[in-house]
Amino acid sequence: MAANSRFAVATHILVGLGYLPEHSPDHLVEKGGWVSSDMLAESVNTNPVVVRRLLGDLKKAGLIVTQQGKSGGIRLAKPSGQITLLEIFLAVGEKSVFAFNPNPPNPKCPVSVNMFRLIEPVFRSVTQVLEQDLAQKRLSDLISGIS
Amino acid sequence: MAANSRFAVATHILVGLGYLPEHSPDHLVEKGGWVSSDMLAESVNTNPVVVRRLLGDLKKAGLIVTQQGKSGGIRLAKPSGQITLLEIFLAVGEKSVFAFNPNPPNPKCPVSVNMFRLIEPVFRSVTQVLEQDLAQKRLSDLISGIS
Repeated sequence: MAANSRFAVATHILVGLGYLPEHSPDHLVEKGGWVSSDMLAESVNTNPVVVRRLLGDLKKAGLIVTQQGKSGGIRLAKPSGQITLLEIFLAVGEKSVFAFNPNPPNPKCPVSVNMFRLIEPVFRSVTQVLEQDLAQKRLSDLISGIS
Repeated sequence: MAANSRFAVATHILVGLGYLPEHSPDHLVEKGGWVSSDMLAESVNTNPVVVRRLLGDLKKAGLIVTQQGKSGGIRLAKPSGQITLLEIFLAVGEKSVFAFNPNPPNPKCPVSVNMFRLIEPVFRSVTQVLEQDLAQKRLSDLISGIS
């Protein structure tokens, strides 16, 4: 999985957790709304290991709860209207949009020694507008769009 | 070079092209303000090949002009106050912030078949706010910050 598809797949998982318990035939989702990680992996169409790794991140961020055992599974930790896409973005630790020049500055060049200080606020600003945008979008908006 | 440091390095190059001709000792920048690609590579502190590749992209985008020959080199194609960071971002073809789930949708799952349609507007919105932010920032703002 490409590093920066983690957000897309995590969002997919959470849409599944919000949608499937109420719309899936009874035999696919256990009573109580617990969804299995295998079912999520089938929906994402990927290896269950990939899904379980992301579930670990989502659990740590307080977005899902899990229950062990045969009739257990995974559930959203709160209503989907209370989960913003920003929370998902932060939960999966998506790498930054931009990376700095990986090479150390050249001390002999006035441009080089100043460059980090000049571009850091640009990156910060971009990250901020991106996060503000994601904070305005809710998981429930996506779930309600399923036809 | 990490794929997503292309924007940082291209910006560094253009800051150099805006700053060095007016501030560098005479013997480093040729008369006429032509900067050599070797000097830019020393500033970025990387292999000249990396710099030349980015220069190719910046030239194609109309942000720089080059002149062959011993007294030639590279120059900004227009004043730095007329170059936005968005133009640099678009010139280097930085990959998108987010990637879609690389796996094909599972036709048996109503979440899976809808997911691309649901998340595509989210990605588009994020790209738009990011580009709007970069469009408001000018190369000259960075150059004037060099101490």
